[in-house]
Amino acid sequence: MRRQPVSTTVRNLSMTDPYRLHYAPDNASLIIRLALEELGLPYETLLVDRRKTAQQSPEYLALNPNGTIPVLETPDGPLFETAAILLWLSETTGKLAPPARTENRAAFLKWMLWCSNTFQIDLRHLFYPEKVIGADPDHQAQLRRVFQTRLKQDLDILEQGLSDTSGLAGDVTPTLLDLYVPCLLRWTKLYAEMPEQPWFQLDTYPTLHAICLRAEARASTHAAQQAEGLGPTPFTAPILATPPEGSAT
Amino acid sequence: MRRQPVSTTVRNLSMTDPYRLHYAPDNASLIIRLALEELGLPYETLLVDRRKTAQQSPEYLALNPNGTIPVLETPDGPLFETAAILLWLSETTGKLAPPARTENRAAFLKWMLWCSNTFQIDLRHLFYPEKVIGADPDHQAQLRRVFQTRLKQDLDILEQGLSDTSGLAGDVTPTLLDLYVPCLLRWTKLYAEMPEQPWFQLDTYPTLHAICLRAEARASTHAAQQAEGLGPTPFTAPILATPPEGSAT
Repeated sequence: MRRQPVSTTVRNLSMTDPYRLHYAPDNASLIIRLALEELGLPYETLLVDRRKTAQQSPEYLALNPNGTIPVLETPDGPLFETAAILLWLSETTGKLAPPARTENRAAFLKWMLWCSNTFQIDLRHLFYPEKVIGADPDHQAQLRRVFQTRLKQDLDILEQGLSDTSGLAGDVTPTLLDLYVPCLLRWTKLYAEMPEQPWFQLDTYPTLHAICLRAEARASTHAAQQAEGLGPTPFTAPILATPPEGSAT
Repeated sequence: MRRQPVSTTVRNLSMTDPYRLHYAPDNASLIIRLALEELGLPYETLLVDRRKTAQQSPEYLALNPNGTIPVLETPDGPLFETAAILLWLSETTGKLAPPARTENRAAFLKWMLWCSNTFQIDLRHLFYPEKVIGADPDHQAQLRRVFQTRLKQDLDILEQGLSDTSGLAGDVTPTLLDLYVPCLLRWTKLYAEMPEQPWFQLDTYPTLHAICLRAEARASTHAAQQAEGLGPTPFTAPILATPPEGSAT
């Protein structure tokens, strides 16, 4: 673990500071890529080769002992936890969020943490049931039933909560939520829904649908589509990624 | 859902603004109480009567559609998600954290989000297995095995990660982590460990033990001990709460 000296030195990260994004295609690192693109920060990507379980290599675990993707290497050390990276990038640049001590900040933080702590966790359990309940297929089927029900509640709660997104953004558009939410909805459709039992229809959630439509019009999305092979409509009608390198799973 | 107008009005919350903490004894609301005490902010508490499942009442769901505890009512609307409330209180007062754009902020955010998103989630699954895997006792036993293993990894990761707490705090002591971590360790001992199969011994984690010892010396902890009946050593040798009102479960 890298130790850092006691200091309150003010950081003025310049446009030339090195950011290194450890990523896998269509993993949570996608959200960080979108933020780096929106902020116009120069960065390099380093593939975490999931087919070789590179996220459990000693080198990777030295950056992130949890073995989760992404890691962002910054001048202030390696960062993990997607929402922490997003909040740090926003704070450091003063962009992509209502500023601290403005009235929309409270609702913004509430929904950011909810996306991280509730929605994304519920999704993750559906992606990796073996990490929650082990290898037994009956156990996994039961887990899937529970979490599909939870995800439907999550979608209802998010639709209602973001129904006034302009209120969350203040005069800042987009915010981190405009990057985060479309990715979560993509993964809901691609990985949480069983193809033979479809239950998630984005256009029945007008606010969430509009957020996805707006996202697909942005240059940051186009850059991510190219880099990670996300297809023509990655948020409103997603298909499995066909990335130029690496593997989503 | 309360709609807020588009605005970036700067909020200067005074010491007399009304904070209303919806709490249950020894629930996640405890961490918010500690923060309010540390900050010296006046607040009133409203018991969420878990024995009557008050967290699912229409009145409570109007504040927090997830039905989770706590909610903090603020001049900027009702806030949920423990880590969101903590970060908002810290930002708004400029206390309890390394400031944005100082070099320890990155590590601080990383561990705050990790506590919320990894450690607390793993704990929650052990507290409420029925919400994860349903009522079957065999399923619940399997879940317990998986998450006890995960929690042991979490404790090792946190011990290592916080081994230089002064580095996280900069010249700010305590930080939100000094409030959050002791509560998580209390709940690990009380609710995640089965009494007949003890596996968590705090003093084998020197950094975490020291954080708990320091916490027990603070006035904020003494206030919470009184208010929620936490006993004489709530973090280093916790016993089940005997609160003056309400119920932890």
